[in-house]
Amino acid sequence: MKVGLIRVLTLSDEKEINKHGRIIENAFPDLKVISKCIQKQPQGIYDQKSEKEAEPKVADLAKSLSNNKKIEAIIVSCAADPAVNELKKMLDLPVIGAGESLSCIASALGRSIGVLAIGDHIPAVVKEVLGDRLSETMGLKNVKNTLDLKADTAVENSLNAARQLINRGSDAIALACTGFSTVGIAKKLSRELNVPVVDPVIASGSVIYNLALTKGD
Amino acid sequence: MKVGLIRVLTLSDEKEINKHGRIIENAFPDLKVISKCIQKQPQGIYDQKSEKEAEPKVADLAKSLSNNKKIEAIIVSCAADPAVNELKKMLDLPVIGAGESLSCIASALGRSIGVLAIGDHIPAVVKEVLGDRLSETMGLKNVKNTLDLKADTAVENSLNAARQLINRGSDAIALACTGFSTVGIAKKLSRELNVPVVDPVIASGSVIYNLALTKGD
Repeated sequence: MKVGLIRVLTLSDEKEINKHGRIIENAFPDLKVISKCIQKQPQGIYDQKSEKEAEPKVADLAKSLSNNKKIEAIIVSCAADPAVNELKKMLDLPVIGAGESLSCIASALGRSIGVLAIGDHIPAVVKEVLGDRLSETMGLKNVKNTLDLKADTAVENSLNAARQLINRGSDAIALACTGFSTVGIAKKLSRELNVPVVDPVIASGSVIYNLALTKGD
Repeated sequence: MKVGLIRVLTLSDEKEINKHGRIIENAFPDLKVISKCIQKQPQGIYDQKSEKEAEPKVADLAKSLSNNKKIEAIIVSCAADPAVNELKKMLDLPVIGAGESLSCIASALGRSIGVLAIGDHIPAVVKEVLGDRLSETMGLKNVKNTLDLKADTAVENSLNAARQLINRGSDAIALACTGFSTVGIAKKLSRELNVPVVDPVIASGSVIYNLALTKGD
């Protein structure tokens, strides 16, 4: 099954553009991912302003991907789910957001979800979907945007923040930025912590894989 | 990753007991499933009384499976999620229900979910988790319990019911009984319909697979 994936970070290196797609393909070998990125957002989405700016760009890319008749579903690879609601109404194929996928999978795994995010940007969709199961949100210090997650200190900072969330009662951790996926932080946290750690890109692959399994040949 | 799975239908044939486990292992080759079934419920769970009867049996089986230190998570393979909330609090490993998994995955794939169930038994957990995204529920005629789904007419009846739900506005179909999984109805519906059809056993595998992927080696 062919899936279109939209990166909300402007990148020029094809390998970087394809990074989330490769994560999904490695986890779900039956999925083949075609990735595209939006233009003129070199720092991605990190606040409400950059989210608003991205929405029409994501919508345009999704419409253009949907013109490829081999593409059967679209993933918007951003935990803020920019333009996802609009695209669900507009396009005739399933469109899913990493934010709602993350929140849905986390909801099934925990009862009191701690959300780790970048800066002060806790995506509205994550709060909304988690609802009563949201325990607490925490923005990482010194991480203003997705690129800052590449710093050497990011894993240690994420681990410290996740430990605080768990000490205060969270029974699962949701990573509310797909930049966490880019640098593989879920696996690193999972090795150290005794609770489920949910990765947004893997969560979106998990949701889409349900379609591939029932689509048949 | 080893996963314990509880069938809520009393079966004697090992192949039948392992059926949901095999579905999950085929879809997610990294998961190894050990299945057990509860006793004295030859018709499974099909109303509130049979659900109540099953709860302590499911809880006991889950506790006994959790004594196997190689088992890292437990799936309760019933869309009513009997004893799942209680077990989540009680056990020190993730316990997930097919009902909440189904509802979570369906929520991410649709905005107006049509639920197909057996008889008049629409699991409370499915209604609760779908919330505003529940469009309509429909109990299949002539299907009083999970065994009736094996009748030759079950696929045709399911298809007719799903078409009605879609005609009245549903944009995804959730199959709210794991008996649908036993007979592979999601795939058959999916070939005929142009909306996502979510299978409860596959949905629970999808949720658990997130743990396997982040657990590392």
